Amino acid sequence: MTAAVSDYHSWFSRRALSMPPSPFGQLVPLMRDPEMKVLCQGVPPDSCFPLLSMTCKLLDGSEVVLSEADTRLAQRYPPFACGPLREWLLRHVLQLHSPPLAEWDITIAAGSMSSVDLVCAMLVDPGDVVLIEEYSFLAGIDALRSYGAQLHPLPLDAEGLRPDALERACTELAQRGLRPKMLYTVPVGQNPTGTSMTSQRYAQIYDIARRFNILIVEDDAYFYQQHVQRGAGCSDSSTSAAGIPATSREEMPLPGMSLGPSFLSLDSDGRVLRLDSFSKTLAPGFRLGWATGAKPLIDRYNMLAYASSQNGCSLSMMLLGKMLEAWGDAGFEAHLRKLQSALRSRCDALVAAAEAHLGPAALGPGAAASWQRPQAGMFLWCRLANRQKTTEELVALMRQHGVAVMPGEFCSAAGSEDGKQCPYLRLSFVASEGEYPEAMRRLGGLMQSLGGET
Amino acid sequence: MTAAVSDYHSWFSRRALSMPPSPFGQLVPLMRDPEMKVLCQGVPPDSCFPLLSMTCKLLDGSEVVLSEADTRLAQRYPPFACGPLREWLLRHVLQLHSPPLAEWDITIAAGSMSSVDLVCAMLVDPGDVVLIEEYSFLAGIDALRSYGAQLHPLPLDAEGLRPDALERACTELAQRGLRPKMLYTVPVGQNPTGTSMTSQRYAQIYDIARRFNILIVEDDAYFYQQHVQRGAGCSDSSTSAAGIPATSREEMPLPGMSLGPSFLSLDSDGRVLRLDSFSKTLAPGFRLGWATGAKPLIDRYNMLAYASSQNGCSLSMMLLGKMLEAWGDAGFEAHLRKLQSALRSRCDALVAAAEAHLGPAALGPGAAASWQRPQAGMFLWCRLANRQKTTEELVALMRQHGVAVMPGEFCSAAGSEDGKQCPYLRLSFVASEGEYPEAMRRLGGLMQSLGGET
Repeated sequence: MTAAVSDYHSWFSRRALSMPPSPFGQLVPLMRDPEMKVLCQGVPPDSCFPLLSMTCKLLDGSEVVLSEADTRLAQRYPPFACGPLREWLLRHVLQLHSPPLAEWDITIAAGSMSSVDLVCAMLVDPGDVVLIEEYSFLAGIDALRSYGAQLHPLPLDAEGLRPDALERACTELAQRGLRPKMLYTVPVGQNPTGTSMTSQRYAQIYDIARRFNILIVEDDAYFYQQHVQRGAGCSDSSTSAAGIPATSREEMPLPGMSLGPSFLSLDSDGRVLRLDSFSKTLAPGFRLGWATGAKPLIDRYNMLAYASSQNGCSLSMMLLGKMLEAWGDAGFEAHLRKLQSALRSRCDALVAAAEAHLGPAALGPGAAASWQRPQAGMFLWCRLANRQKTTEELVALMRQHGVAVMPGEFCSAAGSEDGKQCPYLRLSFVASEGEYPEAMRRLGGLMQSLGGET
Repeated sequence: MTAAVSDYHSWFSRRALSMPPSPFGQLVPLMRDPEMKVLCQGVPPDSCFPLLSMTCKLLDGSEVVLSEADTRLAQRYPPFACGPLREWLLRHVLQLHSPPLAEWDITIAAGSMSSVDLVCAMLVDPGDVVLIEEYSFLAGIDALRSYGAQLHPLPLDAEGLRPDALERACTELAQRGLRPKMLYTVPVGQNPTGTSMTSQRYAQIYDIARRFNILIVEDDAYFYQQHVQRGAGCSDSSTSAAGIPATSREEMPLPGMSLGPSFLSLDSDGRVLRLDSFSKTLAPGFRLGWATGAKPLIDRYNMLAYASSQNGCSLSMMLLGKMLEAWGDAGFEAHLRKLQSALRSRCDALVAAAEAHLGPAALGPGAAASWQRPQAGMFLWCRLANRQKTTEELVALMRQHGVAVMPGEFCSAAGSEDGKQCPYLRLSFVASEGEYPEAMRRLGGLMQSLGGET
């Protein structure tokens, strides 16, 4: 069965539909013709650009050199600097996701936050219903709300978004005559809950999206941060990775580039817009990511990007493009393994410290916290036995106990009120392993002051 | 007389008013406290960041080195990388504009296009009236239109926006019960007309804005591109710089950092939001600019920036911050003089070639083009004797004659229809001087094919 999308316009916002293609586009073919005398550029003389060349020492001991020609392009507008990165991305996306769609494309984004913003601009009119995991990316929730989206939170379990809940929500909305504009989902190393979808989930959710003709926005910022191979002892929650002892985990192979399914890899209809980020894979300071999907979606994205954040920083594009080119697949995979290994050992260390200081032995069975060990990402989603404090009181307790974590209500798509309803904390395992025993000891003290179940 | 703005909320869009401050802000003081154990960051371990250090050779023969510590910060999120650039900008803005307002601030922007977008997001609801020069920045017009602004075009003369026309428009709109949301103006080296405002104009326009309680968005991307000192023989159009022979121009001092007035420098009320760009001053590839204005405006800007383009690329921020720090005022001024000198001689060369190939001697009095020599920026706004072709036909003629220029209708705030109504072309003088005789010869051929006045 296929259900190819034919009417993208019914998804686009009024703003997206009103944005004209840049008229400058008519001049671009002329500007690229070497026979032309070109007097339509709006860039200062490149003989005045301040940088002549660049050399970057890399962590792995190698160097990336930008020649004078590269450096000149890196100082021009993004269309002149994106070449090497765009080529790498096209090949990389094909290799990892083999999109089954005939007409797909990618575009470079000025960071994943910018692509979430542009997706909102592209799709959301005030009042539009957006399906979203009940806990999700904080700034993504704020962006969606600011565009007037009516968020419809969906529950998660140990394997992420629950298909039964999605189907029920779609049915109920349809009965009320409402068509959700999109499902916004973080499928791997979900922020903040740490869950990752199984292959089965992807298929079930894609099937529901097809039946109800919904667009899936797959914000997969943590895709490369898988520190346990998906499917390794996690086909259901009863045998989840949380149950694998740390010693066995140490021996499990790191995923490297074997990263498993995505909605993009299933998308024969053209109903998936996938957002990737370099922020969690390389570093956030490059402010680069990319979006992949059906050509009409990417074209519309670019029409909006041209008059806002554009496609990111040329200097970063050239630098990453040249670095990835020099690394080759082997170098990129080596980097991923290093990252995955660092996150795995940090995750183990945080979980061990949490067991020692937040578990029943330390806090007593009534006041102990609980969690599921994540297989991807950098967050441990920690359920408190009790939470009768407001956000403000909780922040004051953090200051008093000398430990800073994220109150779960910050990530709530349902809205936070004063935080008392939210029994979760998000703990990130980014700091080095040595930090965790003391951090968890302090957090245990904070939890003790919250008291046990009431 | 003062008319300090007290009610910024009446200017803000519904979206700006609905955007919550990032809840993360409550955690930032904790994260900065060295006594804290911090488990709330969302950045991958910096031990995995790919870049170790960087060395940039500069055009002026000097070097900028980013140490390992700088390079680590340059790979983090912008708040950790913005320090050196923000310090330089605060000092620089104070030196150039001495804002008379007590509570002003700056924020770094992800390029000037991103700041125009965020200004639209901050201020424009569908249907809002925006006052704008009749010809203006192409992508700015598109951005404003996409947010649903009703553009109200105002005529320009040789000194830029006409105050009498602004006053009449405000009066007429007030009679219809309409309050414009803002005046969007490009006061120096106006894109595309090349005009620059005199001191008198600034005072007159600011006074009108005060009387009608209008916000002025001063998009001053070409401020640093002044190649003739403002006021040097240009107090009115009859003695404009166009009348100064090239030989005298060669001897005139370059402005350097003596750049004259701005709306920001007059703004005792807090009704100016000034946008600056590094794209036309250093290079567009850094994708950085900055916004300056009353603190409530900058705070609201940042609330929107946090969930969209953020404040630009950390790597660029650190690199420019360190470069400007190393240059000092003398180095920055030397760079400006180099840029201003390059633009002055290119402008002279383009005007000389235009006189030879587009003037009455070449095309005959009925078909000759006309222009005013600009004192700033990089555009010559060229009026055709005749324009009976559509945009498409004009682009085809460009291809045929081997010369690419920008059709004036691309820059029309009134809308372009098929272009036949617009008798202007925008010629940029960015290419090196040697290009212009042949380019103008070809353009003269194109104009001949358009025919004379009808």
